[in-house]
Amino acid sequence: MPDTLADVRYQVALANRMLGNEGVLDAFGHVSVRHPNDPGRYLLSRSRSPGVIEADDILEFTLDSEPVVPPTAHLYAERVIHGCIYQARPDVMAVCHHHAPAIMPFAIAGVPVVPVFHLGAAGGETVPFWNQRDEFGDTNLLVVKPEEGRSLARALGPHGAVLMNNHGATVVGRDLHELVSRAIFMCQNAEYQLKAKMLGEVATLTAGETRLASALNALPNVTNRTWEYWTLRLDRDGGLPPRAAGARRRAASAKAGSSRTTSSRSRKTTKDRKKRRTR
Amino acid sequence: MPDTLADVRYQVALANRMLGNEGVLDAFGHVSVRHPNDPGRYLLSRSRSPGVIEADDILEFTLDSEPVVPPTAHLYAERVIHGCIYQARPDVMAVCHHHAPAIMPFAIAGVPVVPVFHLGAAGGETVPFWNQRDEFGDTNLLVVKPEEGRSLARALGPHGAVLMNNHGATVVGRDLHELVSRAIFMCQNAEYQLKAKMLGEVATLTAGETRLASALNALPNVTNRTWEYWTLRLDRDGGLPPRAAGARRRAASAKAGSSRTTSSRSRKTTKDRKKRRTR
Amino acid sequence: MPDTLADVRYQVALANRMLGNEGVLDAFGHVSVRHPNDPGRYLLSRSRSPGVIEADDILEFTLDSEPVVPPTAHLYAERVIHGCIYQARPDVMAVCHHHAPAIMPFAIAGVPVVPVFHLGAAGGETVPFWNQRDEFGDTNLLVVKPEEGRSLARALGPHGAVLMNNHGATVVGRDLHELVSRAIFMCQNAEYQLKAKMLGEVATLTAGETRLASALNALPNVTNRTWEYWTLRLDRDGGLPPRAAGARRRAASAKAGSSRTTSSRSRKTTKDRKKRRTR
Amino acid sequence: MPDTLADVRYQVALANRMLGNEGVLDAFGHVSVRHPNDPGRYLLSRSRSPGVIEADDILEFTLDSEPVVPPTAHLYAERVIHGCIYQARPDVMAVCHHHAPAIMPFAIAGVPVVPVFHLGAAGGETVPFWNQRDEFGDTNLLVVKPEEGRSLARALGPHGAVLMNNHGATVVGRDLHELVSRAIFMCQNAEYQLKAKMLGEVATLTAGETRLASALNALPNVTNRTWEYWTLRLDRDGGLPPRAAGARRRAASAKAGSSRTTSSRSRKTTKDRKKRRTR
Repeated sequence: MPDTLADVRYQVALANRMLGNEGVLDAFGHVSVRHPNDPGRYLLSRSRSPGVIEADDILEFTLDSEPVVPPTAHLYAERVIHGCIYQARPDVMAVCHHHAPAIMPFAIAGVPVVPVFHLGAAGGETVPFWNQRDEFGDTNLLVVKPEEGRSLARALGPHGAVLMNNHGATVVGRDLHELVSRAIFMCQNAEYQLKAKMLGEVATLTAGETRLASALNALPNVTNRTWEYWTLRLDRDGGLPPRAAGARRRAASAKAGSSRTTSSRSRKTTKDRKKRRTR
Repeated sequence: MPDTLADVRYQVALANRMLGNEGVLDAFGHVSVRHPNDPGRYLLSRSRSPGVIEADDILEFTLDSEPVVPPTAHLYAERVIHGCIYQARPDVMAVCHHHAPAIMPFAIAGVPVVPVFHLGAAGGETVPFWNQRDEFGDTNLLVVKPEEGRSLARALGPHGAVLMNNHGATVVGRDLHELVSRAIFMCQNAEYQLKAKMLGEVATLTAGETRLASALNALPNVTNRTWEYWTLRLDRDGGLPPRAAGARRRAASAKAGSSRTTSSRSRKTTKDRKKRRTR
Repeated sequence: MPDTLADVRYQVALANRMLGNEGVLDAFGHVSVRHPNDPGRYLLSRSRSPGVIEADDILEFTLDSEPVVPPTAHLYAERVIHGCIYQARPDVMAVCHHHAPAIMPFAIAGVPVVPVFHLGAAGGETVPFWNQRDEFGDTNLLVVKPEEGRSLARALGPHGAVLMNNHGATVVGRDLHELVSRAIFMCQNAEYQLKAKMLGEVATLTAGETRLASALNALPNVTNRTWEYWTLRLDRDGGLPPRAAGARRRAASAKAGSSRTTSSRSRKTTKDRKKRRTR
Repeated sequence: MPDTLADVRYQVALANRMLGNEGVLDAFGHVSVRHPNDPGRYLLSRSRSPGVIEADDILEFTLDSEPVVPPTAHLYAERVIHGCIYQARPDVMAVCHHHAPAIMPFAIAGVPVVPVFHLGAAGGETVPFWNQRDEFGDTNLLVVKPEEGRSLARALGPHGAVLMNNHGATVVGRDLHELVSRAIFMCQNAEYQLKAKMLGEVATLTAGETRLASALNALPNVTNRTWEYWTLRLDRDGGLPPRAAGARRRAASAKAGSSRTTSSRSRKTTKDRKKRRTR
């Protein structure tokens, strides 16, 4: 099914750009997905800034983070983060490593991110903290050795995300939509938590509320709606990944068939752009 | 009077997009208005992100929050917020539920929003706090059951807004213009209150000042001017809801007749857009 | 000299939009200038949001804040702020009243804005605090009565700006360029002061440094450069006030003759715009 | 080699605009580079706002900060900062002086910026603090006398940056790429440090981590990737310096030959712009 794989690669490029547009990724950070047909492989871009990744940049890797085809481009140094988590967590289908400004104060102060609003429950009740120094002493803080990746995966355990000391965070999901929602809502949660602390006493969700709200947040109709919303915002900012003409037509007809949610503004923008392109 | 109803539906779409553009709404949140001819009904969009809502998305609901016409699209899960408030508050003509970043720290820390500047008096002297947990224990924090909606309406009482624990806020108004002003100024007020607290002692308006400034803020010439201002900002960002050609002509001539406040820039933008559209 | 007056009115519109673009003004706030040929009059827009003001909106007022020609449009309620300051301060040639987010925490907490960096010295060593309540008790906080305006002017004294409790600030200058610089740098100063306080002990400029840096900041080559910079930013955001074709030509040739500072980007933007307009 | 020098001048203009676009520079601040063929000279713009500088604005100066050719335009008053550092530090090839909002609270509170995340290690283990007042008493805080420039260079010592009391910072690099990375990451580091302090205890990198991460950050493949990223962002915002047609062709073919990293979006933007220009 070559179409499916092409689509998945497009979705990975889209997720990278979406998270770049929402302030989770910048020049650094990366998003991967487990191979749709082979759970022993994953798909990750060659080394590029997330905001400019295209479907053609997405390469296949084994779970030992070796490229399946000899690479002709630079690769991300930290791809063991992805491989080691896919090895340790069969339920995980998508991984994002990032240094979002919203979570950096927590990664620096060693303060746990705790769910403080219903959408923040997407991060789960606990976000564990991994201190690379504990096991590996002085490093440049990148996670590049397999044993570093395995140590991080152990710290992640069964959770949805893990904070990394003076470095950032790694987030996982059961699909790209859940991953992107979790990454963005965890950042919002961190911002609100910091400001609430400056205002008074931070009230967290109870364990029960976290479980219930988290289940709600993971429902496809919720993650699909936010996925659509962040795609529209990316589209308005002119940041959608380019598509081959064939893929474009397929996507357009699939879209037209499945829902009437395409906004006229989005359509207009696309039209404007096409005009500019063909003039 | 089909024209009036079409116009009201357009205004609801506009209010949703305006509040999206000013940072009060994002992928979530919704604005409703009481039906102009039938106080036993209200108008609310089908389930969409506020920034892309169009007049055609606006549906009619009974005050029990049942759709008047069997729906062909998803509906907002939390529409009882609207129905229960319209039942409890005959004076309320418009309702907005939101999770604005500015008020989240207050909804989390349980700190009251108090009027700290003249425009912030729009929120009234007191914004009550509703803790869903008190009455309903662990929930996913959405307000979906009629009894939850009624409890929230009771907590709102005669006030202009109510904070909701770890969730957000609900704001009401005597018309869409007042609602939008109140929602935006309450967010600004919250931001200033937090920063003033970090700087020193927060001085609030006296009860008398709040009453006087609030009355001033509610004058049509004030809420019309801010409505015009936020519409212009939305227009510049390319976010106005689409209009049918007929409605467009009617609106344009009404506008030309009632004031000379349309800016040349706004006109230029509209002209540019029309050109782009018709080329 | 009708050309001069037309130019001054254009400059007032420009200053309003510039301060709107830099986040000092929003839907509210206003900028006036003393009449270039008659010190007993001043020029101020009819009641509009600053970001959309055009030269044609600028009206003449006596120092009692009465319009010289019977008005056909709404006027700002708070224009006595301008008239009373021009009466009390013959050296003042330009006035701005605003509610900038950066200074609101200070106007609420009653904490003085003190010069904390060289450009912040533009505000002078002391920014006095006017508490309307002291003299007038409960009001809606607008400054609308002549006695309120005079009280504010007394509190301003010989200074460059005055804070107004739970309301905002009023800034003055010896010309529009100094006024705009002072208003913007005072906002930056306030932001840095708040953050420095959160970090440690705020070190202020000495009286001598404030005097020396303030003199430097007021030099025409400094205020002209910042005026050019903020004009360019406004131009890029598409916000310049419209000009009559004649005025446009005059301005363009004056510009070409006086300096080679027009950026190619600015020229390109203007060209693009003209194209869009004439197509 | 006139081509090389033309390219270097273009790169200096680009670095100025890039740092303007990323919020390090605004109306003020400047970037210089040591002359590529003559270590006794440096290249710096005539006095302009960084965001509008073009290659043609870049002038040659001796290390005494005298213009090599009699100038026809205003010069930056503070150019001794550059000359004195090039004299004292033969290893330094590029210098930036700025007043970035992110570092101002530190320059005001006198709190050291310390490395709190791996990329922040770009600033080195220690950023010294220079208090102009200690040696020169009350000044307008500009660094304009040779003895002031030499004093600042002494305070900088062998470090990568120096904070200047109530004024800003000066950053140095072994080339423009390292300089720009260091300036931007030092600002991010400062922001995270302030927020981490508000959240809890700030954990800094160890001396070993700082050394290792700093070495990594200085690798050409890292500084080239971030340089590309910030160039793309500048391009999207329409801010690239103009090029002569010949230079443009040369740059394009060099780019095409050296890597396949040019994004399709960047290409599209350039194409769009060319279209707009040639229409």
